[in-house]
Amino acid sequence: MDLYEAIHSRRDVRRFRNEPIPDDVLERILSAAHHAPSVGFSQPWRFLLIRSEETRREVHRLFDEANRQAREAYSGERQELYDSLKLEGILEAPLNLCVLSDHRSSSPVLGAQSMPETIALSTCLAIQNLWLAARAEGVGVGWVSILDPASLRRLLALPDGVELVAYLCVGYPESFLEWPLLETVGWRHRLPLRDVIFEERFGSQPADVSSDEDAPPPRSQG
Amino acid sequence: MDLYEAIHSRRDVRRFRNEPIPDDVLERILSAAHHAPSVGFSQPWRFLLIRSEETRREVHRLFDEANRQAREAYSGERQELYDSLKLEGILEAPLNLCVLSDHRSSSPVLGAQSMPETIALSTCLAIQNLWLAARAEGVGVGWVSILDPASLRRLLALPDGVELVAYLCVGYPESFLEWPLLETVGWRHRLPLRDVIFEERFGSQPADVSSDEDAPPPRSQG
Repeated sequence: MDLYEAIHSRRDVRRFRNEPIPDDVLERILSAAHHAPSVGFSQPWRFLLIRSEETRREVHRLFDEANRQAREAYSGERQELYDSLKLEGILEAPLNLCVLSDHRSSSPVLGAQSMPETIALSTCLAIQNLWLAARAEGVGVGWVSILDPASLRRLLALPDGVELVAYLCVGYPESFLEWPLLETVGWRHRLPLRDVIFEERFGSQPADVSSDEDAPPPRSQG
Repeated sequence: MDLYEAIHSRRDVRRFRNEPIPDDVLERILSAAHHAPSVGFSQPWRFLLIRSEETRREVHRLFDEANRQAREAYSGERQELYDSLKLEGILEAPLNLCVLSDHRSSSPVLGAQSMPETIALSTCLAIQNLWLAARAEGVGVGWVSILDPASLRRLLALPDGVELVAYLCVGYPESFLEWPLLETVGWRHRLPLRDVIFEERFGSQPADVSSDEDAPPPRSQG
């Protein structure tokens, strides 16, 4: 698949078909992740594949707990809209993937002394490679961020020095939506490109970027 | 360009030709970044384009300072090898790009309450889109991580609530190397794919991933 097609048609997937991912497809996706850039060529990413239904049920319980708290940030119509959204696919996706960053290097990582956070950021670059490669393979990925990280660490028995970066659901999707769901339901609109670009000083707007606004999606009924 | 080709031929570029990037090329690259996934569709990424030679000279001074400290982590042959490496292209690249994450949202970001770090991680996903799109356009990107973040914030007058995520050099490269430079000079080798994958529990190795080791690069003389 063409790079730009993968970038523009990639979606955060919540609805999966119960169909396993063939080994060779999964290997191409993980190999793409493994070829991300990393500070000092540290390759800190670690991929914990979780297929066990028991573990996924426990993770799903953690999601329910965290989500009960998260919904309280909203009220009225906004909370109703929040409650109508499907925010994870932990049990439907045949594969869950916990992405970790291993900081237990025995020697100092080249380039990471001034900004040690670049190690975990390298792992995040690998996640985007993984997400795009999955899209090219017709596989959907959804990032579940509504989980208490301390509880998840305990559940997965992660050792000290291994940072939790992301919890992903991976599987063949019911569909790839044409627009991001949160845009379609009116939760938030896409910013014009020119609003995220500044010239020389933060806060200034460049004169020479065209407006490049995507056509907004049709408003969904629910 | 094909997605996998972009992923596997992308490099961290340090040597640039002094040739400006046409506006339409830069816009496609930034638009690719802007179409990254983000927690709660928050689109927190901000791109500060820096072309001013004066600012780039000041950033380069910050690099020199940080690098004098960083090299002290090594000694002997390792330090000699470190000193021989070109670790930035701040002055050669016609464009420097400071990538920021704006956390000053007026309403709570959907999905970011349990793991607020997912906001900055979203910005990092955008960086990988940007890096791949640049590769497809024949444009090189290099991440400069050897900079004191507090000094860089002051220099760029970043407001509170705006997180510094990355400082990138962007321009047409002298070449895209066949292998990562740190691999070629023998600083660090690429891990076998199976070493970064675990099944069900951290530390376990899966049985079913083939070794998938790339051919190592020929060892360079310096």
